[in-house]
Amino acid sequence: MDATTLTVRFKDSRIELVHGAGGKATRRLIEGLFLPLLANPALAALGDAALVEMGEARLAVTTDAFVVRPLRFPGGSIGELAVYGTVNDLAVSGARPLGLTASFILEAGLPAETLQAEVEAMSRAAQRAGVAIIAGDTKVVEHGKADGMYITTTGIGLVDPRVRLDARAVRPGDRVLLSGPIGDHGITVLLARGDVNLDADLVSDTRPLTPLVAALVEAAAPGLRWMRDPTRGGVASALNELARDCGHGVALLEEAIPVRDAVRGACELLGLDPLYVANEGQVLAVIAPEHADAALGALRATPGGEGAAMVGEVREGPARTLVAVTVYGGSRVVDMLVGDPLPRIC
Amino acid sequence: MDATTLTVRFKDSRIELVHGAGGKATRRLIEGLFLPLLANPALAALGDAALVEMGEARLAVTTDAFVVRPLRFPGGSIGELAVYGTVNDLAVSGARPLGLTASFILEAGLPAETLQAEVEAMSRAAQRAGVAIIAGDTKVVEHGKADGMYITTTGIGLVDPRVRLDARAVRPGDRVLLSGPIGDHGITVLLARGDVNLDADLVSDTRPLTPLVAALVEAAAPGLRWMRDPTRGGVASALNELARDCGHGVALLEEAIPVRDAVRGACELLGLDPLYVANEGQVLAVIAPEHADAALGALRATPGGEGAAMVGEVREGPARTLVAVTVYGGSRVVDMLVGDPLPRIC
Repeated sequence: MDATTLTVRFKDSRIELVHGAGGKATRRLIEGLFLPLLANPALAALGDAALVEMGEARLAVTTDAFVVRPLRFPGGSIGELAVYGTVNDLAVSGARPLGLTASFILEAGLPAETLQAEVEAMSRAAQRAGVAIIAGDTKVVEHGKADGMYITTTGIGLVDPRVRLDARAVRPGDRVLLSGPIGDHGITVLLARGDVNLDADLVSDTRPLTPLVAALVEAAAPGLRWMRDPTRGGVASALNELARDCGHGVALLEEAIPVRDAVRGACELLGLDPLYVANEGQVLAVIAPEHADAALGALRATPGGEGAAMVGEVREGPARTLVAVTVYGGSRVVDMLVGDPLPRIC
Repeated sequence: MDATTLTVRFKDSRIELVHGAGGKATRRLIEGLFLPLLANPALAALGDAALVEMGEARLAVTTDAFVVRPLRFPGGSIGELAVYGTVNDLAVSGARPLGLTASFILEAGLPAETLQAEVEAMSRAAQRAGVAIIAGDTKVVEHGKADGMYITTTGIGLVDPRVRLDARAVRPGDRVLLSGPIGDHGITVLLARGDVNLDADLVSDTRPLTPLVAALVEAAAPGLRWMRDPTRGGVASALNELARDCGHGVALLEEAIPVRDAVRGACELLGLDPLYVANEGQVLAVIAPEHADAALGALRATPGGEGAAMVGEVREGPARTLVAVTVYGGSRVVDMLVGDPLPRIC
């Protein structure tokens, strides 16, 4: 039986934090519980955004809830995340944002100035990303029934007609590009909680990916096969989904992956692998080999993309598997995230 | 100074439940804090949905968070509300739904079967409303940090080209129609909590308004000026917004407003006014007088609209004011909801 025809069943009796971590348990929840009940082609594609055809145009639609704790951390806050997270899901779908909606669940007792600060952060972020917040809603729950605030944003975008992303078009020989160093966001938020006794000179990478994606599209649209922003579950989970969806093997060149010393050090002390740590301002792209150099050059020439690197390639096999390889010829299978080392990261 | 040029300031130091109740405090929060920071024309219109022009087409976009407690109540549940609530915001904007997104914030420890039941409810509701859930997201927060689940839905719809809704087009002499009895939803949810020692043979009116709105459009599109579904804050708050936005007076014929005996009885015992109680399956419409009879007939001929009534009319004045009048000539000003008698109702 072909592996893609296997039916996933959700057998867990209770929802736990791990089901929100973006790894295996999340995938099981989505494929075992949500998809069978809500089945439709747009949802089943499980991309970062759903595509809706409207005459000649293709609309991209995406939604995300943000429950990050603490609300503010070095380099960003929940309001910025809520705007950039959704703008980025549109961007990696090849879409220019037409508008965002924002829905707030506020905890009674929240200082008004905390709310004001986050709405200001959203306003600045929306301006930077070139999008307007066109509709909203506010609910208030009793004290203790939320952590200050949860924000859900939905983005609607218009897909660039030059872009045709499809994991099934990915071929052996295609290159995997990464826009910059990984793990900054997850480690920054973890340290901001103060639960671990560690200090690092680190800020979240939260930012709009729109300029980097625009550069990729301009330089290499005909060779652009797949994009993803590796948030929850990190690079390892995003590339596992790629391997699964394209059916080929994906080889990750471990030494080529940019990781800051502070992130590497914190990960070593905490027993984490940076490949599983969330990012909020990086893009992974799969490019046909003949367009890869142009694409990498375009990323590096774009502000914020100076650290871009070619970090892997698609291979014939092993099928549906992500393998990390070293320059010395070593290799290890890299699975999707199992467990939830960093809850409430976005 | 014209009242419409007054600047609202948000001076409350903390967010309280009342800010989510849909009445005066909610309006102050939105106009005093959100709007000045997120200013753009689509948001400033403060309709049930924002309008986005896309070539010839007009897209309607709306978002709502659902935090109803308890999750299930006679006649419905949070999953149904989350679908119909958003479908109805599209419907009263004259739009046919193109797709919904659903974002879940789940509490760790939630029984999987509770989630399954709500996703099933959403699936059935979406099918009934003729819409697909095309994108989603799931986050999990620690036990105690949510009440089982919160659901945010966003709807995207295509506005019927025959429909041109605008409060500023409302004229003295226009009629106010209501699709059926009010207060069923709010009182049902209140009683389902078991906090008050009352029993009533009552179910929520949660349902898609699409068929009723379609009937109005078919019968009276050229005379259709304004629609709203009176949810949080009830009929009184919705018609206050109408009075404010159109600049005229709105007269409500108290005896003409359909209210079930059970709702009237519960309201009397609890000291509530049905005019302020939330509905989840009713539509208010303002129609030019020459189309009013046809519109009312169309509503009554549609299943679920048998109890429709002409409940008021627009008058020269008093400007921006809702006045309830009785057949004996009595009258009283009906303000927007102040305070929050029924928190967490949707």
